[in-house]
Amino acid sequence: MLLNRKNPHGGDIYANRVRIDFSSNMNPEGMPENVRKAISDAAGAAGAYPDPYCTELRTKISVAEGIPYDSILCGNGAAELIYSFAYCLSGNRPALIVSPTFSEYETALNAANIPVSRYFLSEKNGFRMTSAILSEDLRRYCAVFICTPNNPTGITVDPELLEGICKSGVKVFCDMCFLPLSNNPYKYDIPLLIHKYPNLTVLRAFTKSWSMAGIRLGYAICSDTKFLEKMSEKTQCWNVSVIAQKAGAAALDNPKWLSETVGRMRKERERVKEELITLGIHVYPGEANYLLLYTESDLYNLLLEKGILIRDCSNYEGLRKGYYRIAVKTREENDVLLEAVKEVIS
Amino acid sequence: MLLNRKNPHGGDIYANRVRIDFSSNMNPEGMPENVRKAISDAAGAAGAYPDPYCTELRTKISVAEGIPYDSILCGNGAAELIYSFAYCLSGNRPALIVSPTFSEYETALNAANIPVSRYFLSEKNGFRMTSAILSEDLRRYCAVFICTPNNPTGITVDPELLEGICKSGVKVFCDMCFLPLSNNPYKYDIPLLIHKYPNLTVLRAFTKSWSMAGIRLGYAICSDTKFLEKMSEKTQCWNVSVIAQKAGAAALDNPKWLSETVGRMRKERERVKEELITLGIHVYPGEANYLLLYTESDLYNLLLEKGILIRDCSNYEGLRKGYYRIAVKTREENDVLLEAVKEVIS
Repeated sequence: MLLNRKNPHGGDIYANRVRIDFSSNMNPEGMPENVRKAISDAAGAAGAYPDPYCTELRTKISVAEGIPYDSILCGNGAAELIYSFAYCLSGNRPALIVSPTFSEYETALNAANIPVSRYFLSEKNGFRMTSAILSEDLRRYCAVFICTPNNPTGITVDPELLEGICKSGVKVFCDMCFLPLSNNPYKYDIPLLIHKYPNLTVLRAFTKSWSMAGIRLGYAICSDTKFLEKMSEKTQCWNVSVIAQKAGAAALDNPKWLSETVGRMRKERERVKEELITLGIHVYPGEANYLLLYTESDLYNLLLEKGILIRDCSNYEGLRKGYYRIAVKTREENDVLLEAVKEVIS
Repeated sequence: MLLNRKNPHGGDIYANRVRIDFSSNMNPEGMPENVRKAISDAAGAAGAYPDPYCTELRTKISVAEGIPYDSILCGNGAAELIYSFAYCLSGNRPALIVSPTFSEYETALNAANIPVSRYFLSEKNGFRMTSAILSEDLRRYCAVFICTPNNPTGITVDPELLEGICKSGVKVFCDMCFLPLSNNPYKYDIPLLIHKYPNLTVLRAFTKSWSMAGIRLGYAICSDTKFLEKMSEKTQCWNVSVIAQKAGAAALDNPKWLSETVGRMRKERERVKEELITLGIHVYPGEANYLLLYTESDLYNLLLEKGILIRDCSNYEGLRKGYYRIAVKTREENDVLLEAVKEVIS
């Protein structure tokens, strides 16, 4: 919870009165009906403490991911697990954040008193990671934070490059929360990767794929069970609510819904991208369910006046004024956005 | 979440197949209908991120407690706030835990690498805190942890004694999660106490009073907003789910339900206490919705054989084999327990 601090993220529909929120990146088709029903039905079971082992949910994740049950740690949203990971680092060496990226890595490292260094992806390369990172002495860092597809660029990391970083032996925190909504959800062989690299922790969320951000559910994957146990000790044992456990289990029962909705979203993303380019806006070739834009127009405020909330990315380390992120939503909603953009930039 | 660690608490109905759970201490009448409905209805709003400021919920808490809005920090259950508090302490001095008590204080202090000292309440005094604690040099500690009514004894701390401890200037963490279910929910003048002592943090939960342990909702109260802000920085900003915020707001709309159910529970507690004493069991004069017992019988296993789960308190620091805690439940359920106890100890 924030007491008085300013919310640095998108999605604050509570502070902004908006018609449509393009600032947070959820599955555009919302929550599937069976998940919604699981939440409603779970009210009756919510009088008891949650299962501290998340037994049913982890069993289903284990099957869905093809990974051992013991390599899964569930959290109160993926965000909580970023903190648990950070609290396990020792403060003698800084952590390296591949930037620009999601700001919670730094916030969590600050909470854990871990110094932060940054590896800036170059604007010239379209914020794409290159093999140049492998010439860094990564062992100087207590951990490297990577996000793929990256937030806010939507660009993915080449699998060989990710493996190269893991090979260095440095602890790698790889946030794949947006991967199921990207062009290739199976871009990385996660079972093989975690097996080969116990220094790798992969982050996953239900938030975006199943549009259940308000429920809070994510999980970390790592084959080093001692490390995962240490992460689990950094929070209470009842951190994953009864509702979240039931909702997550229901989501995993419905994989077809995810693949179908993502298929439609991808087509919409390409359409929106092309239309924006036609309007003279620079659009990065993101592979996720959102797009990073660059324009000299004051797009954030101009659209907010029309009740449309987008993400002003000027507070991302490594970006500046002019960068904006928009979610890809349904065809109708995207049309509203495109119409509004046309009006304000012409 | 626990990966492989043994759950040290009661309420693990997932690992034990039980008919009735007397090991966790919730309002015996369960969740009120309006809260259950709020949870079901909230499913539709759970696609969006939660309000990171918990605006509506804190406004209602502020009115209910008669305290400023800015002195309230909500958490993913009260347990999360124990960790946030512990992460704000500095490790040069140990923290003092008034014991026997809830084990999560120590678990959280371990997570934060804070050394733990214990002040043991004497069995001879029936585990009641006496003014002897004021002769300790409390400033040697970075914080003192107090639970009132204490878990598992149900004994409350004298208000003057609590104030005496606060007067020493040491940081005080006072867990009042069970207070609304005790003989006098207004035993402490919390608005005045936090106003006079910015070094005092009070912990409150919805878990027990409204029987919503599976939802995870608690809050900390402190007039030192800088400290509370620091606590908030120790976790993600979306730690309180949409469901929890809606359920908590609904609970606060229904104070009559709480006072009526607690009235009935108190009568049951006195009845259960007298019956157990008649059976030759030593029962401590607890004021909460549970009772601490001492008996030479192997009560835990004997009752578990009958499908009744009670709390074996032998793993509490400062207790030993022979101590058990039972929840006070509805008349019918209590009769089942009493009947079973009669059978196994005769």
